[in-house]
Amino acid sequence: MQEELTQLLYDALEKQDTLQLEQLVGDLQPADLAEFLHQESIETSLKLLTHLPINRRAEAFGYLDVPTQIKLAQAMTEEGLAQLFMHMNADERADLFNEMPEERQQGVLRRMAKEEREDLRRLASYEEGTCGAIMTSDYVTLPQGVKVNRALEIVRQTAPNAETIYQIYILDAAMQLVGTVSLRELILAKPTTEVDTVMTSDVVSVSVHELQEEAARKISRYDILALPVIDDQQRLVGIITYDDAMDVAEAEATEDIHKGASVGPLDEGFAKAKISSLYRRRINWLVLLVFANILSGAGIAFYEEVIESYVVLVFFLPLLVASGGNAGAQASTLMIRGLATGDVGARDWGKLLGRELIVSASLGLTMAVAISGIGLWRGGMDIAQIVALSMFAIVIVGSMIGMSLPFILNKLGWDPATASGPLVTSIADIVGVLIYFAIASMVLDLPLPG
Amino acid sequence: MQEELTQLLYDALEKQDTLQLEQLVGDLQPADLAEFLHQESIETSLKLLTHLPINRRAEAFGYLDVPTQIKLAQAMTEEGLAQLFMHMNADERADLFNEMPEERQQGVLRRMAKEEREDLRRLASYEEGTCGAIMTSDYVTLPQGVKVNRALEIVRQTAPNAETIYQIYILDAAMQLVGTVSLRELILAKPTTEVDTVMTSDVVSVSVHELQEEAARKISRYDILALPVIDDQQRLVGIITYDDAMDVAEAEATEDIHKGASVGPLDEGFAKAKISSLYRRRINWLVLLVFANILSGAGIAFYEEVIESYVVLVFFLPLLVASGGNAGAQASTLMIRGLATGDVGARDWGKLLGRELIVSASLGLTMAVAISGIGLWRGGMDIAQIVALSMFAIVIVGSMIGMSLPFILNKLGWDPATASGPLVTSIADIVGVLIYFAIASMVLDLPLPG
Repeated sequence: MQEELTQLLYDALEKQDTLQLEQLVGDLQPADLAEFLHQESIETSLKLLTHLPINRRAEAFGYLDVPTQIKLAQAMTEEGLAQLFMHMNADERADLFNEMPEERQQGVLRRMAKEEREDLRRLASYEEGTCGAIMTSDYVTLPQGVKVNRALEIVRQTAPNAETIYQIYILDAAMQLVGTVSLRELILAKPTTEVDTVMTSDVVSVSVHELQEEAARKISRYDILALPVIDDQQRLVGIITYDDAMDVAEAEATEDIHKGASVGPLDEGFAKAKISSLYRRRINWLVLLVFANILSGAGIAFYEEVIESYVVLVFFLPLLVASGGNAGAQASTLMIRGLATGDVGARDWGKLLGRELIVSASLGLTMAVAISGIGLWRGGMDIAQIVALSMFAIVIVGSMIGMSLPFILNKLGWDPATASGPLVTSIADIVGVLIYFAIASMVLDLPLPG
Repeated sequence: MQEELTQLLYDALEKQDTLQLEQLVGDLQPADLAEFLHQESIETSLKLLTHLPINRRAEAFGYLDVPTQIKLAQAMTEEGLAQLFMHMNADERADLFNEMPEERQQGVLRRMAKEEREDLRRLASYEEGTCGAIMTSDYVTLPQGVKVNRALEIVRQTAPNAETIYQIYILDAAMQLVGTVSLRELILAKPTTEVDTVMTSDVVSVSVHELQEEAARKISRYDILALPVIDDQQRLVGIITYDDAMDVAEAEATEDIHKGASVGPLDEGFAKAKISSLYRRRINWLVLLVFANILSGAGIAFYEEVIESYVVLVFFLPLLVASGGNAGAQASTLMIRGLATGDVGARDWGKLLGRELIVSASLGLTMAVAISGIGLWRGGMDIAQIVALSMFAIVIVGSMIGMSLPFILNKLGWDPATASGPLVTSIADIVGVLIYFAIASMVLDLPLPG
């Protein structure tokens, strides 16, 4: 249905059918309208936006990504932009504000009402990545001791401007958060009781300085609609809603997935990323890994004489080292995601390492059997024995490295996700080369090189 | 604060302090209580649960994973279990029901009221992974044409049993979904207007047969609190709430991350996974990749004479093929995640491939320069030239493979995530070996083997 609407919109745009246009824009979901705007020119986008009443305009505008918002904002009059600012969600406009050129910031601030201006300044002041930076200030509060019927009246009055009215916060005289109550609980409570008797006083909250991921984690764990954010004096300063938490969780998962392949965080998303930024996010690790792989080469060079006597050994080199790397990448990936979702804790290491030993020994055994036949065919009994033994040992060692590295990084206070597939694979490769040729030298009864 | 509570709970358990216990259990968040129960014995868990009033007991029970729920359910009396069932969320109890032994199912059904029984049977009948399987039947509906004040009365009456009362659905006489209204809109509307005039008739919904991911995607895209689920006759049959969508999104991200390292989906989570199930989820790809890597070995064997004449070439083999694989894994990971989040569409391939050509050429050039010095040092001018040229070509080709494979899989109707890091690396390895030795043969003016 949404696709049809978009098509109709294109047709109306082409025909310059203003009446049709106005009706279509009114029917579209803000998210769909935003996607449409992303693909259009600045002029078309501005024209379309003006067909919307200011509330819906601000809503659709909020769904655009910040670079597009900036482009549109630059093309608006200062008056038009200030009006848009007054109707945008407090958190979204603070994000936009932070990316605007300074003279434009000042111009807009000048045209805003004092209260809104101060609110914007405050929200825009928190460091990126913290709870403060994604919280909004549009929520409903109640003073302690208020009666339920009066509380419902307050909710009704605040409703048009609050981001949510379904979770309501109760403050004491010092503006400290003392409890929370859902609109459902208010509706079901007797009108003459005090909110204090229906509220929950064990409130799950985050500090304004905590990382966004922590807010997303709590919202997901406790199924919270809107998480209160408090400052160092326990005063309520904002809320983070479930939809923002979903966006944070998605961005975090994307970052972890990219890290898993040794790609740095892309601020602007993959589709829109510039060539230079893609280059920068990828080159560091690639070059670093080249130097790690030189060690594999050095390992091979160390056994040059063995290779010269038995060139057939080189045939099995790629598949043996790759198998250790693959098993290691599996183990590290399982571990990193387990740590990220909280499924696994740092104290579980010993237990998990023990389990991995059994799992990897089983994997190694299966693969040793699979490969020994080929060893026999290509190089005879000795080679089959070397290849099977090496496979078994390399898969176990690779898996142990993969399982341990994220834990060690975690202990050192680093991001366990740094133990990416390519890094684990490179380390497993080096170890794999050494194991393979050591076993080969032993079985073939060759003197140690050097 | 939650950690402290848990500690107190342990102390009270040890001291058998029932009064203290009761108070503590009452203060705990259901999610925290569930985590505590996960670590305790069945007996302790049952004892703790009985300290809770039935509503909170059902809520905490709903936070447990299904295997733990089953263990506890088996230890309860049929009467106790039926009572719990009557108070659980409709979607959670259907999940539990589906995993119970059949005689237990029958026993519980017999003790439930007719309406609840039919609801449970219906919800439990949908296939796993579909929207039907995660939807709940506890929502508020209004008939078309009802006045706002009457609507608010209906909401108040239904409130205690609905999973959410904040999004309300308007049905026509045929039970078809004709619109939706938020509680906020109802509260702000004039009491005497008809709901039809305040409702939104362009409702975003999913079909009961659609995949869960689709529901999660829509909820995230449109910031929906509760998404209506309709059957083939456009009748409303359930809703999916944002908190369930968050769980689905997290599980999907975990599955994609695991797939990225060639690990199959683990139903029970990594921490609790059995050795046999970890083995099964990892062995298939590992063995498959061994056989892919045999092709690399065959490529090396094909150039055996070249290697025998220039053993120094083997020194650079691991780092060259690894670089192609790493660049390819980066590209495929960026692409797979882009496709999964909707950041990238199938029609973007051409454009992205062109960009990747420039990015990978820059990466390849940088790495060629980095490695040529080592080539010069280890093997002289010829080797430096071979290694630099090979690096440049291998990084570009590896990246192109990584960027294309997810797209091709997508076109074939397969999951693009199948183009895992290890698979792309293996393919890039084979191609890397061939490129390297072909360039070496050319530069060293060796006859082609064979």
